[in-house]
Amino acid sequence: MASAAVLGASGYLGGELLRLLADHPELEVTSAVSKSHAGHAVADVLPNLAGCYPSLTFAPDAQAVDADVAFLAQPAGEAMQVVPGLLERGIRAVDLGPDYRIPDPLEYARVYKRPHTDPEHLGEAVYGIPELFRSQLQGARLVANPGCYPTATLLALAPLLKAHALAGSVIVDAKSGTSGAGHELSATSHHPEAALTVWPYGTPEHRHVPEMRGVMARLGPEPPTLVFVPHLVPIVRGILCSIYPTASASSDPDGWPALLSSFYEGSPFVRVGPVPRLPWAQGTNRCYLSVQRAGASPVLFSAIDNLGKGGAAQAIQNANLLFGWDEAAGLTQPGYGV
Amino acid sequence: MASAAVLGASGYLGGELLRLLADHPELEVTSAVSKSHAGHAVADVLPNLAGCYPSLTFAPDAQAVDADVAFLAQPAGEAMQVVPGLLERGIRAVDLGPDYRIPDPLEYARVYKRPHTDPEHLGEAVYGIPELFRSQLQGARLVANPGCYPTATLLALAPLLKAHALAGSVIVDAKSGTSGAGHELSATSHHPEAALTVWPYGTPEHRHVPEMRGVMARLGPEPPTLVFVPHLVPIVRGILCSIYPTASASSDPDGWPALLSSFYEGSPFVRVGPVPRLPWAQGTNRCYLSVQRAGASPVLFSAIDNLGKGGAAQAIQNANLLFGWDEAAGLTQPGYGV
Amino acid sequence: MASAAVLGASGYLGGELLRLLADHPELEVTSAVSKSHAGHAVADVLPNLAGCYPSLTFAPDAQAVDADVAFLAQPAGEAMQVVPGLLERGIRAVDLGPDYRIPDPLEYARVYKRPHTDPEHLGEAVYGIPELFRSQLQGARLVANPGCYPTATLLALAPLLKAHALAGSVIVDAKSGTSGAGHELSATSHHPEAALTVWPYGTPEHRHVPEMRGVMARLGPEPPTLVFVPHLVPIVRGILCSIYPTASASSDPDGWPALLSSFYEGSPFVRVGPVPRLPWAQGTNRCYLSVQRAGASPVLFSAIDNLGKGGAAQAIQNANLLFGWDEAAGLTQPGYGV
Amino acid sequence: MASAAVLGASGYLGGELLRLLADHPELEVTSAVSKSHAGHAVADVLPNLAGCYPSLTFAPDAQAVDADVAFLAQPAGEAMQVVPGLLERGIRAVDLGPDYRIPDPLEYARVYKRPHTDPEHLGEAVYGIPELFRSQLQGARLVANPGCYPTATLLALAPLLKAHALAGSVIVDAKSGTSGAGHELSATSHHPEAALTVWPYGTPEHRHVPEMRGVMARLGPEPPTLVFVPHLVPIVRGILCSIYPTASASSDPDGWPALLSSFYEGSPFVRVGPVPRLPWAQGTNRCYLSVQRAGASPVLFSAIDNLGKGGAAQAIQNANLLFGWDEAAGLTQPGYGV
Repeated sequence: MASAAVLGASGYLGGELLRLLADHPELEVTSAVSKSHAGHAVADVLPNLAGCYPSLTFAPDAQAVDADVAFLAQPAGEAMQVVPGLLERGIRAVDLGPDYRIPDPLEYARVYKRPHTDPEHLGEAVYGIPELFRSQLQGARLVANPGCYPTATLLALAPLLKAHALAGSVIVDAKSGTSGAGHELSATSHHPEAALTVWPYGTPEHRHVPEMRGVMARLGPEPPTLVFVPHLVPIVRGILCSIYPTASASSDPDGWPALLSSFYEGSPFVRVGPVPRLPWAQGTNRCYLSVQRAGASPVLFSAIDNLGKGGAAQAIQNANLLFGWDEAAGLTQPGYGV
Repeated sequence: MASAAVLGASGYLGGELLRLLADHPELEVTSAVSKSHAGHAVADVLPNLAGCYPSLTFAPDAQAVDADVAFLAQPAGEAMQVVPGLLERGIRAVDLGPDYRIPDPLEYARVYKRPHTDPEHLGEAVYGIPELFRSQLQGARLVANPGCYPTATLLALAPLLKAHALAGSVIVDAKSGTSGAGHELSATSHHPEAALTVWPYGTPEHRHVPEMRGVMARLGPEPPTLVFVPHLVPIVRGILCSIYPTASASSDPDGWPALLSSFYEGSPFVRVGPVPRLPWAQGTNRCYLSVQRAGASPVLFSAIDNLGKGGAAQAIQNANLLFGWDEAAGLTQPGYGV
Repeated sequence: MASAAVLGASGYLGGELLRLLADHPELEVTSAVSKSHAGHAVADVLPNLAGCYPSLTFAPDAQAVDADVAFLAQPAGEAMQVVPGLLERGIRAVDLGPDYRIPDPLEYARVYKRPHTDPEHLGEAVYGIPELFRSQLQGARLVANPGCYPTATLLALAPLLKAHALAGSVIVDAKSGTSGAGHELSATSHHPEAALTVWPYGTPEHRHVPEMRGVMARLGPEPPTLVFVPHLVPIVRGILCSIYPTASASSDPDGWPALLSSFYEGSPFVRVGPVPRLPWAQGTNRCYLSVQRAGASPVLFSAIDNLGKGGAAQAIQNANLLFGWDEAAGLTQPGYGV
Repeated sequence: MASAAVLGASGYLGGELLRLLADHPELEVTSAVSKSHAGHAVADVLPNLAGCYPSLTFAPDAQAVDADVAFLAQPAGEAMQVVPGLLERGIRAVDLGPDYRIPDPLEYARVYKRPHTDPEHLGEAVYGIPELFRSQLQGARLVANPGCYPTATLLALAPLLKAHALAGSVIVDAKSGTSGAGHELSATSHHPEAALTVWPYGTPEHRHVPEMRGVMARLGPEPPTLVFVPHLVPIVRGILCSIYPTASASSDPDGWPALLSSFYEGSPFVRVGPVPRLPWAQGTNRCYLSVQRAGASPVLFSAIDNLGKGGAAQAIQNANLLFGWDEAAGLTQPGYGV
């Protein structure tokens, strides 16, 4: 067994990491850090984990962790304070926040309104979508685990981008459950305000757009213009992206289902098939893709759990690759029918 | 007081008509027809209306109604059996179903999989969006009340189409509450299947698309290509359309908010402003429009209650115009904050 | 037209007052007070009211209001600072908060953890359930509008208490929508925490219990012991109380439906009938009661909208009585079927 | 590995069995029977299980199954047609339906409106709550897996009944997600009817009441009278029972938390602690119990997943005991924080 530390362990992503790691065959959580709950037993703060970590108490100090791998599930700006020390002490790091996702420190500063304090390791970080960057992840030290929206969007678009099948612009209308907005209280996540509406937000530009544009540019030449609008829907877990691409002159969307299926052969967590339902992905590392038509135009649907494949589960998949284990270790339980 | 009959009165649209008409200052419901509940008191079938119609019992026969105006809230194919007799007997008709929305009987037959049995009156029917066709509605005999999706979509697009502000294609990603699918039981509206997902449906082509295309062609030359994908969201009442248009070379989207506001001056039920929330429209005849940017691209949001402005309330607004009353008669109560 | 002021106008109850008063035939809102939104136009803060109050701007100072009647929808402790001045200036007051509901200032201090600063008017305040205290309300100056839970509970129990039909204890298991917890952000109303659970709270004693006990003691001798547990359910508007009473030796629950129906003859807003659905009451001043059996034991269900009959609508019903108008003025629109 | 058959495999309980068994360390599903989907691949009918059962196709005939253990998740009345043949062929049976839960065939006939066709094995069936009947389950051939409501109710009451701590009556106000009503379409589970209300049903007597009464009588002398009212809440998975007992003269409710904790020492799936949230139990075999006060009266809360501990997960726990494996085999993944 290798040892794991979870930083930011009392947020939604941190809690989901602890939940999924409770049964991992190769990793044992030996440290959980939470400033706000330091000193409290994990099972008192997270009763859903009662019995799983009988002797684990939240630690206060992210700088002091010792483990084989650290999962960082902290707000933007915190990971880059911690990662240099981790790497120096030989601890691999999977950052679930945004600090290492945008390679250019100046663009990071523009998007996240703060200077990047660890530009040294920016170039080393591997973008953690295993289905796209598997070979770079094997044996890496530092993973930039992607945002939930980029995961759902890029898994749908990557095979088309690599096949030069797209042109013009692509519109992504994303619908997210409210857990994606985190456990911090806000008016848009207040139940009486959120439960009876669909709430478009993130205009004029959501923070995940530069991240997506950057990866798209790496996947193919002349990537299409990205128009992205996220919406909160009254669901807790799950993202459905409805994706409206334009086919290039040389590509026939009738062939896209086969193109996607072939691209993801050997990737057990991505399924190409019928229009997906979010419970299928819930609690799992799965992504369900579907290619349909709206009149003559192609439309793609991509469904994940924002806390699963869009966060904690993908982080574990990345860690599995770092250590050379089976990519699916600890991630095999399927999602719900209902 | 003029007298009104409601046909198909025990469905969701019929029930909403009875609810809104209970307080109408000019119209009195003297007849309610429901095959499935014939012989039962209205208040026994619809307890929310207890006290409103103390002596009204559901009648069995749509052919026998007598009133100054009839609201037809029946499944596709039934209104065209009833309308000729109504008009012959001097009864004005507002049809909330699709039978008179598509002017070409052959296209109607293609879309609704049945021949049109009343082509004679197809040409006479006025498409019932008062904000667009107010003058034709005044004094008309037969109104084709629009579908819920076309109402939300066309109110957003009409000012742009009339101003020749659009080019290329327009993508409409619509999110609808489940009451839009009616009170007939179905797997997609089964609570355990519907409550935890966003369900894209209507691919490759929803039945409202030809209706929208037809009206768009009347509003401006060379209308943009329409790509329309409806989604069920776990809400009961309300439609939010997220609309991704392409501006024509001569039009600057920065001017669109003013263009829309000016277009709807004098139309009390359409509001142009911030990103809308569905409860504002709930139970009302209101439509909330907003123009925003996603990056450099314009995006419009349009919010209505599918049973209100998208159905029963707009039908009453149309009836008000038929008789020359205040357009807002019986429709003044505002929607919810929450 | 009489003039009305709404204090605390930007909370959920205040907003619902403004919504319902927009169409009131006798009352015109001439003043709306909100500390947090002072200086802003009502329609900018509450877009659902766009067009209803074109020239109304939120005022900052509750002490300065002038009107024929003031509705106070403020947090506990604020009304008692304002009411003495209102009464002195000849302004009638309907307080939707708790300050005048408990006649004993010491018990008020115990329950609300602050001394009562206006004991002088405590005795004058009439408890505002019109169906129980109609004659005292007519012409009164000060109304203590009841809590939402007491309204639902007492309307069910009052006829039985007055008929000496109860003995032993009565258990009230209440289920409330989240708008009842107000617009202040809290973890229990955070959508991801609230949407997938039923949340029992208020143990060991909810603040509405002493209010209910007090009224029960006035309705009949030896009132039963009250056991009350409220639960938040993932609904926005509505309260359903499931009430488990014990019949006294002399009372046969088979006669209770008739007893309740007869008690509420002449009370247009209370309906006795089948098991209720919350949308019937939504947005209205209605209360739906039902008497059923669980095995041999009687069980009562009581359904209201916590913001309607449980708050703003009942406040308007009370104001109607203060001025001698039709009790139902401005409150006639029925609730939803769905 | 032992082999398992799932009968009624395309319903909600059958699907949950297949989901949980996909990762079971000792059991392999070799047969899945579904009349309605016979001949179709499991992954086509249940896409959440894609990849789990690559070569499994639904079989048509329950009578022909061969396996070491059969899980029967069929409608009432079907299991008793199949069980005699299973036992004769040496196949152990865990029936998730009601056919073997009520020992008296005449009472079964009264409650389920059909004669019992296998009275011979009624006496042999062990009631499958392992925490109460563990020793009888070890090595048994036939298990009557309990109803979801009885599981939640009896786990809370059993320690008190065995300690003679109760007297008088106990009221159980149960709130259930809609998956408990199954995948058959019905008006009460139609999303527009179900999403905005709390729906009390099952009056005057739910079918689970005789089952509960029977087990309560076995747990202690003079069991209290049971008053039980189930409610549908707009949640998909989960049951919360709010339980209002009366303490016997000799029992002090202050000691009940310790009494319950001690009773469930050694039972890893039952937790006694704070007021529970349903996501903690979701997808799992866990039951969360809490003892609180409402005024002076005790109130207990019991939370399970109706498809988990209230159905499929408990069935697997029972199967583990039949074969002498670790009771928790295949059931270790914890529930959600959110």
